[in-house]
Amino acid sequence: MCRNILLTMQFDGSKYHGWQRQKNAITVQQKVEEAIDMVFHEGASASGCSRTDSGVHALMFCCNFFTEKNIPIEKIPSAVNAYLPEDIAVFDAKFCSANFHARFSCKEKEYVYRLINTNYRDPFWYQRAYFYPYAIDADFLNQIAQSFLGRHDFSAFCSSGSAVKDKYRHISEFSVKRNGPLVEFSVRGDGFLYNMVRIMVGTLLSIQQGKIDSDSIPEIITSKNRDCAGFTAPPQGLYLKNVFYETKGGL
Amino acid sequence: MCRNILLTMQFDGSKYHGWQRQKNAITVQQKVEEAIDMVFHEGASASGCSRTDSGVHALMFCCNFFTEKNIPIEKIPSAVNAYLPEDIAVFDAKFCSANFHARFSCKEKEYVYRLINTNYRDPFWYQRAYFYPYAIDADFLNQIAQSFLGRHDFSAFCSSGSAVKDKYRHISEFSVKRNGPLVEFSVRGDGFLYNMVRIMVGTLLSIQQGKIDSDSIPEIITSKNRDCAGFTAPPQGLYLKNVFYETKGGL
Repeated sequence: MCRNILLTMQFDGSKYHGWQRQKNAITVQQKVEEAIDMVFHEGASASGCSRTDSGVHALMFCCNFFTEKNIPIEKIPSAVNAYLPEDIAVFDAKFCSANFHARFSCKEKEYVYRLINTNYRDPFWYQRAYFYPYAIDADFLNQIAQSFLGRHDFSAFCSSGSAVKDKYRHISEFSVKRNGPLVEFSVRGDGFLYNMVRIMVGTLLSIQQGKIDSDSIPEIITSKNRDCAGFTAPPQGLYLKNVFYETKGGL
Repeated sequence: MCRNILLTMQFDGSKYHGWQRQKNAITVQQKVEEAIDMVFHEGASASGCSRTDSGVHALMFCCNFFTEKNIPIEKIPSAVNAYLPEDIAVFDAKFCSANFHARFSCKEKEYVYRLINTNYRDPFWYQRAYFYPYAIDADFLNQIAQSFLGRHDFSAFCSSGSAVKDKYRHISEFSVKRNGPLVEFSVRGDGFLYNMVRIMVGTLLSIQQGKIDSDSIPEIITSKNRDCAGFTAPPQGLYLKNVFYETKGGL
């Protein structure tokens, strides 16, 4: 009997060219498929919940794959981890329905963007946060970020090169919080365009720097013009944090 | 005029063979001396506050060096950082008296040993904590750790190969605390023998595992026999956290 299995994992993306397989670069998908294949020997193809750019991390990333083998579900994480590099680790495996797809069945995702706000760079956050030594008022940015909420055409917050036609997305939560020297931008929505989180963060930072007016986010959205938004914050600060599906019965 | 300068830095020790220069291995001292030399051009020799083993980290590490150049003190951290790799960063520079030595003037040091207590390994703590998936009762270990306090001959907690003759050391604080999945062993003392913190932590873990009696630390100390203590916990969990000197006037 063919079973559809959902793997949940974490990865430090520093050394990878994102999730999606590429011909001339090492990606997380390649490593995960190779590890699954070492356990299942069926030439596994794993469908990820998201692409993710080079250097982007995941505190939670989901993928699903089909197998005819009867390996007990609770043994799968350890078995796959044994063949994964140290910067990728599966922490859960469950059965899901035959028509479940890690990407298309996903209802919402949450990303967190981490910025390390110290005077001198911190060796322990290298490749894991954006080093930003300038003044930041997290409460001020948190207030402004609320303008992103709701359903909008986010074309102004999408890098060129995206083939996606429908650029409407619904953002349900956006918070900016300080935690000691770390400033965390958390954003939850039903989908994200190419570089959308990184451009939203870069726009908030441009506002902090006085380069963009603090009340102009609604206008930037309406403009649908990428040039009106701020810079694209670098990838090392970005983490996929949560992937939301229907309640367990729906898997 | 010759000035004695104290640099304070942090480093992720994953890629280094400790602080101390070695002929055939890359060490933190070599990287720091090379960076100082790029700024001062005097063939700097930096005296560190401590050796530190391969793979051990520092949240605070001090070294001093002499210079005849008049570079403004507040510009030194950025100038040196410009020539340091991303996993080493200087965050402070100050003048100190001519007879100050980062190691010999040190009154106390504090180390923290981090253990990541999750079922599956965490990619973000790889090389930065000891992955330990078994049950740990931090409060229980904290109570036991109090037996290390005071001035004792710690020969039983010293790896062979140490040339040090006087093995008396004074431990002033020892705490074991849980912080979510992290368990932190913090120990402060006037000096530490070779692998002493790692053997103390390994002994506490052996007690947790029931391999050593929970009331036997005083006996192990008295035995002066390395074989009576527990295993040497691996280096990646160890961080030098604080280096204490006389009050500022004393520098």
